[in-house]
Amino acid sequence: MTVEEHKDNEEAAIKRVIEGFVEALRAKDLDGVMSMYAPELVSFDIVPPLQYVGADAFRKRWEEAFSSVQGPIDFEIADLSITVGDDVAFTHSFNWSGTTMTTGQKLGFWRRWTACWRKIGGKWLLVHDQISVPVDLKTGRAVLDLKP
Amino acid sequence: MTVEEHKDNEEAAIKRVIEGFVEALRAKDLDGVMSMYAPELVSFDIVPPLQYVGADAFRKRWEEAFSSVQGPIDFEIADLSITVGDDVAFTHSFNWSGTTMTTGQKLGFWRRWTACWRKIGGKWLLVHDQISVPVDLKTGRAVLDLKP
Repeated sequence: MTVEEHKDNEEAAIKRVIEGFVEALRAKDLDGVMSMYAPELVSFDIVPPLQYVGADAFRKRWEEAFSSVQGPIDFEIADLSITVGDDVAFTHSFNWSGTTMTTGQKLGFWRRWTACWRKIGGKWLLVHDQISVPVDLKTGRAVLDLKP
Repeated sequence: MTVEEHKDNEEAAIKRVIEGFVEALRAKDLDGVMSMYAPELVSFDIVPPLQYVGADAFRKRWEEAFSSVQGPIDFEIADLSITVGDDVAFTHSFNWSGTTMTTGQKLGFWRRWTACWRKIGGKWLLVHDQISVPVDLKTGRAVLDLKP
């Protein structure tokens, strides 16, 4: 196998992990969603606090997210870019999530996702990510209407 | 040299690049700041648009940023974490930037920084990053008063 073939294989492996995550998310399958994350996860999520440290803390965040949504979660990923090294990789994309909250509030917007991966025990796991929308610093408001 | 010693060397090399960037930023040294970025940079910055593609586009962003600030830029990095592979690496940290805009507006807050690196021609270059603050999705407001 050439170096290029090896990289192609690793990229395909990460792509499969992300596709599994998207499927689990749409199905509100908490265990399926959590299987993407390493135990030592550090997540800079779209909502406060500044960071979630550890997959256990992030599991609670996902539980709350799923229970605050009524009906299905509309989720898709655009412009996914994957860069792999030997046992370190990173990806970035634009992710659409459209939901109706239990309060009745409808939320649907594109957010940026940067994910950082390590190959641990032969499996690619997400060890760090950041999810955000840009901010208008003059008004202090999040900019939620941007499209990729 | 053991694998561990090699990793320590590469981490130190990336740390020096970041320290050089901070020094250049404080001095409003545009060429110094730009020397951190690969030409193919994709940046998910704190302000719109969703992404800046290419170092040339990002250079304009830095020019505008420097010219919109009066006096010095107060900048520091906390909780820097560095993970290196063979020729791919990622880092994350909390970055404080305190400035007075030419409009008189004072801006000072901690933001999250995730940076993704490739070793190209023996040199670590930033090929992708994301910078953000969390958002209160109920109000649509950026949360600017969080501390690491």
